[in-house]
Amino acid sequence: MLLVMKFGGTSVADVARIKNAALHVKREVEAGNRVAVVVSAMAGHTNQLVAWTREASLIHDAREYDAVVASGEQITSGLMAIALQSLGVTARSWQGWQIPLKSDDAHGAARIDVVEASEIRRRLDLGEVAVVAGFQGISPNNRITTLGRGGSDTSAVALAAAIKADRCDIYTDVDGVYTTDPRVEQKAQRLDRISYEEMLEMASLGAKVLQTRSVELAMVQGVRVQVRSSFDPPDICKPAQLGLAEGCGTLVCDEAEMLEQRIVSGIAYTKDEAKVTVLAVEDKPGVAAGIFMPLAEANINVDMIVQNISEDGRTTDMTFTVAASEFSRALDVLRLLENSIKYADLRGDTDVAKVSVIGVGMRSHAGVAAQMFQALAEKGINIQAISTSEIKISVLIGAAYTELAVRTLHTLFGLDH
Amino acid sequence: MLLVMKFGGTSVADVARIKNAALHVKREVEAGNRVAVVVSAMAGHTNQLVAWTREASLIHDAREYDAVVASGEQITSGLMAIALQSLGVTARSWQGWQIPLKSDDAHGAARIDVVEASEIRRRLDLGEVAVVAGFQGISPNNRITTLGRGGSDTSAVALAAAIKADRCDIYTDVDGVYTTDPRVEQKAQRLDRISYEEMLEMASLGAKVLQTRSVELAMVQGVRVQVRSSFDPPDICKPAQLGLAEGCGTLVCDEAEMLEQRIVSGIAYTKDEAKVTVLAVEDKPGVAAGIFMPLAEANINVDMIVQNISEDGRTTDMTFTVAASEFSRALDVLRLLENSIKYADLRGDTDVAKVSVIGVGMRSHAGVAAQMFQALAEKGINIQAISTSEIKISVLIGAAYTELAVRTLHTLFGLDH
Repeated sequence: MLLVMKFGGTSVADVARIKNAALHVKREVEAGNRVAVVVSAMAGHTNQLVAWTREASLIHDAREYDAVVASGEQITSGLMAIALQSLGVTARSWQGWQIPLKSDDAHGAARIDVVEASEIRRRLDLGEVAVVAGFQGISPNNRITTLGRGGSDTSAVALAAAIKADRCDIYTDVDGVYTTDPRVEQKAQRLDRISYEEMLEMASLGAKVLQTRSVELAMVQGVRVQVRSSFDPPDICKPAQLGLAEGCGTLVCDEAEMLEQRIVSGIAYTKDEAKVTVLAVEDKPGVAAGIFMPLAEANINVDMIVQNISEDGRTTDMTFTVAASEFSRALDVLRLLENSIKYADLRGDTDVAKVSVIGVGMRSHAGVAAQMFQALAEKGINIQAISTSEIKISVLIGAAYTELAVRTLHTLFGLDH
Repeated sequence: MLLVMKFGGTSVADVARIKNAALHVKREVEAGNRVAVVVSAMAGHTNQLVAWTREASLIHDAREYDAVVASGEQITSGLMAIALQSLGVTARSWQGWQIPLKSDDAHGAARIDVVEASEIRRRLDLGEVAVVAGFQGISPNNRITTLGRGGSDTSAVALAAAIKADRCDIYTDVDGVYTTDPRVEQKAQRLDRISYEEMLEMASLGAKVLQTRSVELAMVQGVRVQVRSSFDPPDICKPAQLGLAEGCGTLVCDEAEMLEQRIVSGIAYTKDEAKVTVLAVEDKPGVAAGIFMPLAEANINVDMIVQNISEDGRTTDMTFTVAASEFSRALDVLRLLENSIKYADLRGDTDVAKVSVIGVGMRSHAGVAAQMFQALAEKGINIQAISTSEIKISVLIGAAYTELAVRTLHTLFGLDH
């Protein structure tokens, strides 16, 4: 098999862990697989580099920030190559500019344009392991760029697409994707497979295993992604083999590859939400736009929206959610509207949580929402807002009820075993 | 003026010091000078990186070692650019591969082939400060190389030659080159000027201000080098100005630029020497070669050599010095020769020191050696070996007499004031 193996920051946190990760690579090479490795910076190291740039100047040039911060992955790529060589595995490190992995010049959060991987591919075919520094690329101006937080996952998926890898294995500090957060529900089950669409919902809703961006790219490019733990003993895991079940971790793949379809695959939650209510605005065309356009212009993402007819029938209450980090900015924007949009009052609340039920099976099964609302009602949990997509139903509830709601829904949809 | 300003590891040891160094640069820019900066890694950081490569594997690929270790200078170059920008100075960082500074592929100790500085030169002329990561280059195979310890000085001098700088200022943690080690002789004087040849002798004989290699390059390329302290307050130093005296630090320059010629410019010493004596070898042609060829083949540098006729007139005692670090290896080589070269015994001694008197004035003044030997004899210091060059006389003495000898010679040659 042609494999990409990506090791995150905790998996390469020190030299001992880098050596352990190298044993995983050796296992695959010895089984006859051709391997490209993508590494993050040693855990904590990127934070140190970022702190230095801030100490140098609070307002800093993103191009120079990138030159500083990209050095973290450079170090791990060299150390990983050394560790592999000491195990008898031929290996060579590759920086973003050496590949080259070409990006735009949006320094600090660059987008990948193209990965010119023909030389790496040639060497893979000769049996050399390519150790690629993740998170970095090179701009049209020959400057180092970084892809933003979580960019190493994206590097790995983009590289996998470029070399047409059979799979992209993301080694991290958890052993796969779970039906929900195991800290909230001990009965959470590791999923053998999950579809890209479900993973996207899980990722963007607070399950922090994979970055949204890398899942989107994997979906678009059709890259099969295996999430697995680097802390599993390297010699116990079976080498990757075409057509065989993976055995450990979770495969993120096309819906068509899913073996059995559950209706619901997982329960996600996030407490990083804030609720805003604009009371008694005029109920006439254009008012909603008058509220949401200014928020959009201020780059504030609005998520759930609920509109209630108020008692007098001529005005309406508008409730919506934003990220908790943008809460006070959203209120500022709305206060400035008081002259253009008439409203009685503004209310806000950060003591809320969003709990979501996710599953591609919902497409063909009606009644999931009804079951969900009823089960929550039976526990006395009040639903403050609802949003849905084809494969997801989210509810906004009081933050204190988060764990109860997650456990209730986990049991309701048969995920406990 | 067109200036190169190089800051060593202690001058950029943390972000506060990088900001201080940036103030030195700002002073020169504001005076209308065009400036290229060369930076070392933060003091101690290179050692950390080297330690990691050793932890990854004791036997490591020098190409990967270079990829890891070069990241230290990458970090400081970015931080320095940020610090300069925050002072309102336009600046841009440059890695070895971006310039490009092309080297051979002797990884870990690469030699510079050419510095293609036309783009940097163009930007300097537009008023942009170039912040170059020292110590690193790029090989013909597109791999990062490092130039070996002290390589940042060499980077600075090579860059100065490439852009035809008027001067290369080496900022370090001492304020210039002294007539001798101030820890040994408090009356040691800072030299305003020193010739390349003298500096070479001072550098290779244990005065650790500048690396030998960078002085050689400066001499060959005719680059004027100013050694000065980054700890001098940035606002008190005068900006560099063509044709004016420097005022602080020591200018390393061509002999023709020396204002007054002293006979002796400085006294250097080193205790890193070992003495080896091969007793009673046959006094016939070929014996010296029989001893020194095997040492050369073992890459052991022999320095001073003394041959004494022994009492019987048919054999001779051969005494020579090697670096203390190679002492036991030298003895091993000689023991293996016992069958091919007949000798009575081997003796060794690491309790020795080499003290040297250096000055281009010696070329035209006879009698320096005689004065030196007599002054040492008057203090009861026994000379065990002697070596000389056109501008240097070195003697090997008991290590316990080092400081006494240095002080005696410092006074003898009028360096105390």
